[in-house]
Amino acid sequence: MLGAGRMGLEHARTLLGIGEAQVVAVADPVTQAAHRAASLLRAEKVYAEPEAAIADSAVEAVVIATPTDTHARLIEMASLAGKAVFCEKPVAQDLAETRQVMALVEERGVPFQIGFQRRYDPPYAQAKAAIEAGEIGEVEQFIAVMRDPAPPTLDYLQVSGGIFLDQSIHDIDCARFLVGEVEEVLAWGAVRVDPAIGEIGDVDTTNLSLRFANGALGVIQNSRRAVYGYDVRTEVFGSRGKLVMDATPKTPLWRYANGISADHYHFFMDRFKEAYRLELEAFFRFLATGQRPTPGTQDALESLRIALAATKSLKEKRPVRLEEVV
Amino acid sequence: MLGAGRMGLEHARTLLGIGEAQVVAVADPVTQAAHRAASLLRAEKVYAEPEAAIADSAVEAVVIATPTDTHARLIEMASLAGKAVFCEKPVAQDLAETRQVMALVEERGVPFQIGFQRRYDPPYAQAKAAIEAGEIGEVEQFIAVMRDPAPPTLDYLQVSGGIFLDQSIHDIDCARFLVGEVEEVLAWGAVRVDPAIGEIGDVDTTNLSLRFANGALGVIQNSRRAVYGYDVRTEVFGSRGKLVMDATPKTPLWRYANGISADHYHFFMDRFKEAYRLELEAFFRFLATGQRPTPGTQDALESLRIALAATKSLKEKRPVRLEEVV
Amino acid sequence: MLGAGRMGLEHARTLLGIGEAQVVAVADPVTQAAHRAASLLRAEKVYAEPEAAIADSAVEAVVIATPTDTHARLIEMASLAGKAVFCEKPVAQDLAETRQVMALVEERGVPFQIGFQRRYDPPYAQAKAAIEAGEIGEVEQFIAVMRDPAPPTLDYLQVSGGIFLDQSIHDIDCARFLVGEVEEVLAWGAVRVDPAIGEIGDVDTTNLSLRFANGALGVIQNSRRAVYGYDVRTEVFGSRGKLVMDATPKTPLWRYANGISADHYHFFMDRFKEAYRLELEAFFRFLATGQRPTPGTQDALESLRIALAATKSLKEKRPVRLEEVV
Amino acid sequence: MLGAGRMGLEHARTLLGIGEAQVVAVADPVTQAAHRAASLLRAEKVYAEPEAAIADSAVEAVVIATPTDTHARLIEMASLAGKAVFCEKPVAQDLAETRQVMALVEERGVPFQIGFQRRYDPPYAQAKAAIEAGEIGEVEQFIAVMRDPAPPTLDYLQVSGGIFLDQSIHDIDCARFLVGEVEEVLAWGAVRVDPAIGEIGDVDTTNLSLRFANGALGVIQNSRRAVYGYDVRTEVFGSRGKLVMDATPKTPLWRYANGISADHYHFFMDRFKEAYRLELEAFFRFLATGQRPTPGTQDALESLRIALAATKSLKEKRPVRLEEVV
Repeated sequence: MLGAGRMGLEHARTLLGIGEAQVVAVADPVTQAAHRAASLLRAEKVYAEPEAAIADSAVEAVVIATPTDTHARLIEMASLAGKAVFCEKPVAQDLAETRQVMALVEERGVPFQIGFQRRYDPPYAQAKAAIEAGEIGEVEQFIAVMRDPAPPTLDYLQVSGGIFLDQSIHDIDCARFLVGEVEEVLAWGAVRVDPAIGEIGDVDTTNLSLRFANGALGVIQNSRRAVYGYDVRTEVFGSRGKLVMDATPKTPLWRYANGISADHYHFFMDRFKEAYRLELEAFFRFLATGQRPTPGTQDALESLRIALAATKSLKEKRPVRLEEVV
Repeated sequence: MLGAGRMGLEHARTLLGIGEAQVVAVADPVTQAAHRAASLLRAEKVYAEPEAAIADSAVEAVVIATPTDTHARLIEMASLAGKAVFCEKPVAQDLAETRQVMALVEERGVPFQIGFQRRYDPPYAQAKAAIEAGEIGEVEQFIAVMRDPAPPTLDYLQVSGGIFLDQSIHDIDCARFLVGEVEEVLAWGAVRVDPAIGEIGDVDTTNLSLRFANGALGVIQNSRRAVYGYDVRTEVFGSRGKLVMDATPKTPLWRYANGISADHYHFFMDRFKEAYRLELEAFFRFLATGQRPTPGTQDALESLRIALAATKSLKEKRPVRLEEVV
Repeated sequence: MLGAGRMGLEHARTLLGIGEAQVVAVADPVTQAAHRAASLLRAEKVYAEPEAAIADSAVEAVVIATPTDTHARLIEMASLAGKAVFCEKPVAQDLAETRQVMALVEERGVPFQIGFQRRYDPPYAQAKAAIEAGEIGEVEQFIAVMRDPAPPTLDYLQVSGGIFLDQSIHDIDCARFLVGEVEEVLAWGAVRVDPAIGEIGDVDTTNLSLRFANGALGVIQNSRRAVYGYDVRTEVFGSRGKLVMDATPKTPLWRYANGISADHYHFFMDRFKEAYRLELEAFFRFLATGQRPTPGTQDALESLRIALAATKSLKEKRPVRLEEVV
Repeated sequence: MLGAGRMGLEHARTLLGIGEAQVVAVADPVTQAAHRAASLLRAEKVYAEPEAAIADSAVEAVVIATPTDTHARLIEMASLAGKAVFCEKPVAQDLAETRQVMALVEERGVPFQIGFQRRYDPPYAQAKAAIEAGEIGEVEQFIAVMRDPAPPTLDYLQVSGGIFLDQSIHDIDCARFLVGEVEEVLAWGAVRVDPAIGEIGDVDTTNLSLRFANGALGVIQNSRRAVYGYDVRTEVFGSRGKLVMDATPKTPLWRYANGISADHYHFFMDRFKEAYRLELEAFFRFLATGQRPTPGTQDALESLRIALAATKSLKEKRPVRLEEVV
C-alpha cells in the first residue's frame, strides 16, 4: 500500500474485505497517516519511503495511491522488482514517458492495472456486456456528461495537466471502453466557473467531440462545478436501442410537498464507492488466477493520447486526428 | 386553413377548441381532404387554391400547413393582403428568400408566428421561465438530443434541405429559446442509418457543437432512427442548477416481471400533441390581444442561419462563425 | 347535453372533436351557461329543462352532467324515450333506486354507459389488457391510493353519501375492473383533515380492505387532502409480475439545484383529461357500431354495493360480506 | 461473534471496517465455519460453544447471529455476564419469554440492540428525521409493502412463528419507527403461493390493517413470492406532504429497445447491505460513547406484540386491540 492519503485510505478499507489480499506494509512519508492505515489494515510494517516497501521481499503487489508525479517512477521500480502493480490514473502526463513506462511493464511481464474504476461500476460493466452481446446493435452515438461539485484548488489544477487529462480522461476511457477507438477530436473550452482557472491557462467548461474509428460520433461535456452535486450521465445509442447510465437520485427517498423532490450524489467517492471496491477485488482475483488485469497498459496509454489530442485541439482551435499525437 | 394534410388536420382539430377562432374557409387542391376538414371545422367555404382563400375578405388570419416550397409565396400573399399568418416551419430553405419574406411581413406589420411548437410544450415553457427567473444562474452548457423513430422517404429527404434544416432546426430554435444567440458552430455528420441517405448527399447521424454569444457551450445530437421510438431530451446547465426535459416513459404504467419496464413515445405528434394545441391557442390569443406573436420573423430567420452554418461546417469540415452566413 | 356546469363544459369540449357526435341541444336552467355551451358546441337549441331536451325528437343520445340527485330521474326519462344514455356517476346513492333504474334501462334496451373514466385512462386500460393476457399471472394483491388535493365544501359533502360513495367508488370500480368481484370488505375511517367533516357524520381518511372472490386481497386508501396535489397510484400484484400506475410527475421537467425536483398533478381533471375524452369517444363509437357500452348498468350497481358495504362496515365496526347489502 | 452462518459472515465482513470493534473470538459449532470467520476477522480465539465465548473475559460485547431458538438463552447469559448484546431479531416468539429476557437486560443494565436494520437504511433514517422535523406535518396514513422473491423452505416456515412474526415484523417495526404505537390491528391472510404453506397452518399473502394511537391508519401488505425480486416500498402520508421509500431499480442502467427497462433488487441482503453495515457501526458507536443503543428492548417487545395480535386477528377473524395481547 503506497500512499495513505484520502484515496489510499479508501483502498485500505476495501483491501480489508478482500480475502486474497493481505497487507504486508504501508508506506507514506506522513508517519501518522502511514501508521493509521497500517493499524486499520493490521499491516506489520510501516515505511516512510515507498521505495523501501517495494523492495520488501514479502511484498508481491503494490497499490499506488501516491501523488501523481510519483506514479511513473514507482511503476518502474515495481516492474523492475517484478511486483504486480495497481496504480491510480494517470501513469504520467506525458505520452513519451507513459509509453516508456508501459513498455517496461510489458517487457517485465508484471501484471498491471490502471485505476479507471468506472469500468467496474455495475451499470457500466453491464452496459459493456450488453453492447458486446449486440443488444443495441451497431453503436452510432455516445454522450458523456461529468460535472464535479466544485473545482479543486488552484495548486492542484496547476499541476493537473489541464481539464482533459485530469477530469475528462475518465469519460475518455469510458468512450473507449463502450464504443471503441477514437480517430479524431474537436475540443471547445470556456472559463465559466472561475476566472483564476483561465489565468493559469486551463478551462473549466468543455465540449469535446469525438469521431470513433467505427464511424460513431460522440461528445463529452465536462464542468468543474455543479451546485447540485456530482453529475455523471452516459448514453450509448445504437441501431437497435440505447443504454443510459444515470445515477439519480442517490437515496430512494422521495419527498412530496411542493412538488416531488429527491437527493443527489455528492461526489465521485460517493457515487463510485462500489466501483472502487470492485476494481481492487478484480485486481487481486486477476493475480490469483493469473489473468491479465484490465484496464491495462494500452488503456493507460490510449486515453492519455486522446486527452492530449483534446488539449491540442483546444489550443489550436481545430479538429485533431489521433495520429497527430505521438 | 391552408392545407388539409396530416399537419393541417391536426391543426383543424385544435382550432375547434379555440373560442377566439372561427374557421371561415379551408383550402386544399385535394378536394376530398378539403371537404373533410371543412366539415370537421364547420367551415362554410372550400377552396382548391390557397390564393383564393387568402383573398376572401372574410378571412382575417391564415394557418399555413401546405407543402414547404409554397410557404414563402403564401406568406407574401397573405402579408400583402394584410392577413395575420401562422406558418409551419420553414419559411424557405434559402436565407435570402427568407430574409426578403420576413422583411415584407415586418414592413406590412402583419402578425406572424412560426411553428416552433416546442416553445409551447409545458416543460420547455416552464424551463424558459425558470431560466429567466435566474433559477439556474448563468447558463454554461446545453445538450439537446432528438432522434426520430425512422427516416422519412428519400423523396422527402431530397427536398428537405438536409438534416440540419429539416430536423436539427427544432433543437436549434430550442437552443436560441433557452440559451440565446449562437456565434459559432462545428458540425460532424455520418451516414449510419441508410447508405441511400449518403448517396443523395445528406447524413443521418449528427453531432453539432454550438458556441453561444454569452459564452456557453452546447451540443445537438440528432439521428434519423431510434428503434425504441421518438427520443427528445434537452438539458440546460447553469451556475446554480440544471433543468432537464426528458419525456420518458409515455404512459405511467410500470411493468415488473423480469426487471421493470415501461413504454416510450412513438413520434413527435404523440410527444408534442399538447404543444401543437398551445401554440395555436397562443396565436389566436396574440391576435385577440394585439400582442406580437412569438416565435416570429427573427426566430424563423436566425434558426435557419444556424442550420445553414451547420451545413456549411459539415461540408467544409471546419468551424463556421455565424457572420459567415449572410 | 344535459348540464352545462364544470363537468358539462369539459364534456362539451370533448364532444367537439368527436366526428360521430353532433350536439343538437344543450339544457341547463342557468340560461347563460346553457347558451355558452351551445355556442361553443354550435348547438342549435337551448333548453332550460333537461326533460324538454330528452323529449326533442332530434336527440338520439343524452350526456348527463347534471347534479347527482337528478341522475336517476333523467336516466328513467331517457330510457322511456328510447334515448342512449351516458351518465356521470352515480346513478343514485340508494341501492334499491339504482337497481330499479338499471332494470328499466335493461328492459328498454337503451345503450347505457356510466362515467367511470379511469377505465379509459391509457395506463389503466393497458393494465387491464395485460392482466387479461395473463402477463402477471393470477392476481394476488391490489393496492389503490387516491388522495384529493383538498376536501369539497361541507354543503357538497352533506349530500355526497359519504366518502366511500363519493370518492372511494372510483377505486372500487378500478378494483372490480382490474381484479374482479369483491366478497367482503372491512372499512376503517378517521377524521384527520377537518373536524367539521366528522360533525356531519363522515370521515376524511380511510383504509378499506377488500377480499376478492378469486382469493386476492386488496386495500384502498383515500384521503380528502394531499397538500402536494392529486395523488393516484394503483398496484396490481400477481403470481408472475406486477403492474403499477403512478402518474408522477406531471411535466417531464426535472430541476436540479438543491437535490432534484419535479411537479405534480393538481386534480382529477388534470390527471384524467385524456380519459374523459376517451370515454366519450368510446360511447359514441359504441353507439355507431351497435356494441354494448361499458362500464354499464352492472358496473354502476356493483360498485355502489361495495361502497355501501364499506359504509356499513365503518358504522358497525366489523367486516361486511357483500351479500349482506341487498 | 456468535454464529458464523450467512448472517454471521455478513456481520463479520462489516465488523472488519469498524475501527471501534476488535473481534476477539468467534463461536460456531460448525468448526470449519468458525475458523473461516475467525481467519477473515483476524480473531484469535475460536469456540464451538457460544457460552464459552460469552464467558471469555476478553469479550466485552457479543453479536448474536445464531439460530433463532437460541437467542433468548444467549441474551440471558450475556446479560448475566455483563456483556453488551447485539442480537438478530427475534428475541423469542413468545411474549412472556421475550418480556422476561428484556426485563433481565434492563435490570442488568447491559447495552442491547435488536437487528431491525431498516431503521439504519439511509432513506428510512432520513424519512424518520424528516417526520420528526415536522416536514410532513401530522402523519395520517401509512402503507408498507414487502414481498420476498421466493418463500423459505417448509422446514424454516414450520418454526418461524408464522408470516407476521417472521416477515411482517420488519414492516411492523418500521410502522412503529415512522408513525408511532399501534392500538388495533385487523389481519387478513390467504394462501396463494403454495398450498403446502396452508397445510402447516400459515398464510403467504397478507393484508394487515393498523390503527395507530395518534389516529393514523395504516396497512402492511406482504407476500412470500415476487417473481421480479425483492419488493420493498413504504409510504408515509401526512398533513403537509408525504415520503416514499421505494428502491427501484437497483442499478442506474436503463435499457431502451422495445420500451424502457431496468433491473430490480434480488433480496434483502442486496437491498439492505448498507443498513446492515450502518446498524453495527451504530452499535459500536453507542458502546464507545455510552449511549443507549436503539432499537432496544422495548422495540423488540412491542413489535412482537403487534405481530402476535395480527396472528390472533387472522385466526379469530376479527379486529384485535393491542391490550388483548399480554
